[in-house]
Amino acid sequence: MEMHDVVRLHVNFKTLEEFENFREYGQQELSMKEDLEANIIENDSESPFYGVYFGNKLVGRMSLYKIDKKFDRYFDPPQDYYELWKLEVLPGYQGKGIGNSLVNFAKSLGLPVKTNARQRSDSFWEKMGFEPLTYQTERDRGENPYVWFPEGVSEQENN
Amino acid sequence: MEMHDVVRLHVNFKTLEEFENFREYGQQELSMKEDLEANIIENDSESPFYGVYFGNKLVGRMSLYKIDKKFDRYFDPPQDYYELWKLEVLPGYQGKGIGNSLVNFAKSLGLPVKTNARQRSDSFWEKMGFEPLTYQTERDRGENPYVWFPEGVSEQENN
Repeated sequence: MEMHDVVRLHVNFKTLEEFENFREYGQQELSMKEDLEANIIENDSESPFYGVYFGNKLVGRMSLYKIDKKFDRYFDPPQDYYELWKLEVLPGYQGKGIGNSLVNFAKSLGLPVKTNARQRSDSFWEKMGFEPLTYQTERDRGENPYVWFPEGVSEQENN
Repeated sequence: MEMHDVVRLHVNFKTLEEFENFREYGQQELSMKEDLEANIIENDSESPFYGVYFGNKLVGRMSLYKIDKKFDRYFDPPQDYYELWKLEVLPGYQGKGIGNSLVNFAKSLGLPVKTNARQRSDSFWEKMGFEPLTYQTERDRGENPYVWFPEGVSEQENN
């Protein structure tokens, strides 16, 4: 399966228009749009989103947000990690390894990665080397947490 | 549109088997099943889930989790509130007002309600009297937060 180039997305009107094609479009994207329109953020600012293009078209994306180790409730030893969300590949572009390329990019950054596996996607995450965590009601609040451990990192005990 | 009876679900093998029909089935449900099998929780313990039955069949459910006011980052004045997640009605039973009945039940408890509106469900939540919150990256981390304010409650300022 082919590898796809993953690029960091910048906040501009073209990117925000492309975002409207994705199902997981909501307050986060609207907020970026309002900030851009109100000149609160500069055109072409860095965003927490990464994507894969086919030609000029954004066909897959994810958001990666670095969490400081003082908030880490998942990993032992506690450390900075990435929270991965909004992984999505447009219909018509699925099955080409675009999701794999995005997730492999996240893993290549060298920090643990945590995601909330949605709607029966468990087998995808397991194939990508992620593991389910022991569910903790207070921490997980209905999430379905899956994590990728780099070498030497393990699950944080219930605390 | 008809109103449907909403009942609190108890943890037993029948309920857990019914849960397998829902798309949002994951670590939370598996954890309840393991706890029941290992006798860590008693049969028929209370669960955070509420549901609607048609005859003997569970056709809709949601989880409602009460959050203590010391963790409240959404409401002014800060107060106990409910986090609503995993609202789902089985295919074939949609369009009958089952989702409305579940959400109205949550609102009837008299506390604010917060949810993470998924995949283009914004118009449903707005119809149910919910409002989108101003997106805060640190707090919301990719969520799409919608809330219902009881009389006298408003949005907590950025802090």
